[in-house]
Amino acid sequence: MDKNNPTACIIIIGNEILSGRTLDLNTQEIALQLSENGISLVETRVIPDIRQMIIDTVRELHIKYDYVFTTGGIGPTHDDITAEAIAAAFNLKYERNEAIYNILVKHYAKQNEEVNSAREKMAFIPENAGLIHNDATYVPGFITKNVFSMAGIPNIMKAMLKSVIPMLKKGKKIYSKSLEVNIAESKIANMLENLQNKYSDIDMGSYPFYNEKIHGTVLVLRSTNTNLLEKAFIELEENAKNIK
Amino acid sequence: MDKNNPTACIIIIGNEILSGRTLDLNTQEIALQLSENGISLVETRVIPDIRQMIIDTVRELHIKYDYVFTTGGIGPTHDDITAEAIAAAFNLKYERNEAIYNILVKHYAKQNEEVNSAREKMAFIPENAGLIHNDATYVPGFITKNVFSMAGIPNIMKAMLKSVIPMLKKGKKIYSKSLEVNIAESKIANMLENLQNKYSDIDMGSYPFYNEKIHGTVLVLRSTNTNLLEKAFIELEENAKNIK
Repeated sequence: MDKNNPTACIIIIGNEILSGRTLDLNTQEIALQLSENGISLVETRVIPDIRQMIIDTVRELHIKYDYVFTTGGIGPTHDDITAEAIAAAFNLKYERNEAIYNILVKHYAKQNEEVNSAREKMAFIPENAGLIHNDATYVPGFITKNVFSMAGIPNIMKAMLKSVIPMLKKGKKIYSKSLEVNIAESKIANMLENLQNKYSDIDMGSYPFYNEKIHGTVLVLRSTNTNLLEKAFIELEENAKNIK
Repeated sequence: MDKNNPTACIIIIGNEILSGRTLDLNTQEIALQLSENGISLVETRVIPDIRQMIIDTVRELHIKYDYVFTTGGIGPTHDDITAEAIAAAFNLKYERNEAIYNILVKHYAKQNEEVNSAREKMAFIPENAGLIHNDATYVPGFITKNVFSMAGIPNIMKAMLKSVIPMLKKGKKIYSKSLEVNIAESKIANMLENLQNKYSDIDMGSYPFYNEKIHGTVLVLRSTNTNLLEKAFIELEENAKNIK
């Protein structure tokens, strides 16, 4: 990890993840894009749709990290409480954003429908929040201080993230190289530790796998320094050849 | 949620999740089994292989919840620091467990191999920890106070969880019923909110989906009270029929 890279965390807001009903795909998508842009994802939390827990978590994490990303809880139903809770976390008014309200009015007018109270709720966000326009939905996400609030549905989240990434301060991209070997982790551990001690600026991970009775290991080297990464990787390959 | 049900949280320890390399499957598996056994999963955190962060997170969460489950970081490599960090979190000695060491000696003797230092590391756990034997691997997980430490590899984690579940105090099972409707969430929101207000002991969630341009919603009702759940669900179905 580059110590100077911006830091980030994710807050996944959703009972459906904690009940096991839904597999969280958003963490991986955000994680990959942050890596690509040199932003270090330090932590992810999954919390329920409980107002005080959202408030406490946002208050704790927005001062710890450069960026906070939330997903979920920004729709029209009673269990969508993210916007109100984030306003409360920052002691901001939770009010109707006229730009969003106008989008809603136009959108539903086309369908000869009205903006009912549930739809109007989607226009309520913290005062002075920025908007996250995107090409997947007419309702934008919103930005409160350093907190970016996006939808929970993966394809909408992804579209919002596409709008968010250009707004972020980039760090040094983290490159990675992987070596897959059909050697058990316990045979390769000492070699890897010696290599890690030699290259302290490279983050080395070891991930065992078991396929059809083969005990193998994927060794992953990660660094912002491509030359150093290349050098360490060649040494890793050489060392691995000598292990039976 | 039943307020009297035991509570739990998960700590996923692993840089590979935060880099986006690996999709976390363990949260969903644990979540489903806890639901089944009436234990409320309140929170999941994904944190990196950073010693102090593991210590702080375990110290904070083990007093907040009845049960803490950790996954990852219990293998033989240098980046496997969960056992040492948990020992430190509780000010316990990190020492060789002779029961595990004997398992390792026997296991490797069969292969005419020795317990090298990397393998021996897998026998080091917090003093007096309980063991989580399982049928997927010869190396057990371990239990420190109310913290259950399991492997990160999903099939091994699952086998360890199978051993853990019988050790836990059960709560009232949380039942759920789902209704899928081809109606946009914003049209159904008011009805659902009224129903939620009527049945405060039932947890009602609304999850929109978009398939081939159909805007639909899955409405999920969850409760420990099956009679009440059935009653509310019938009312939900009736109400949904009246929405166009």
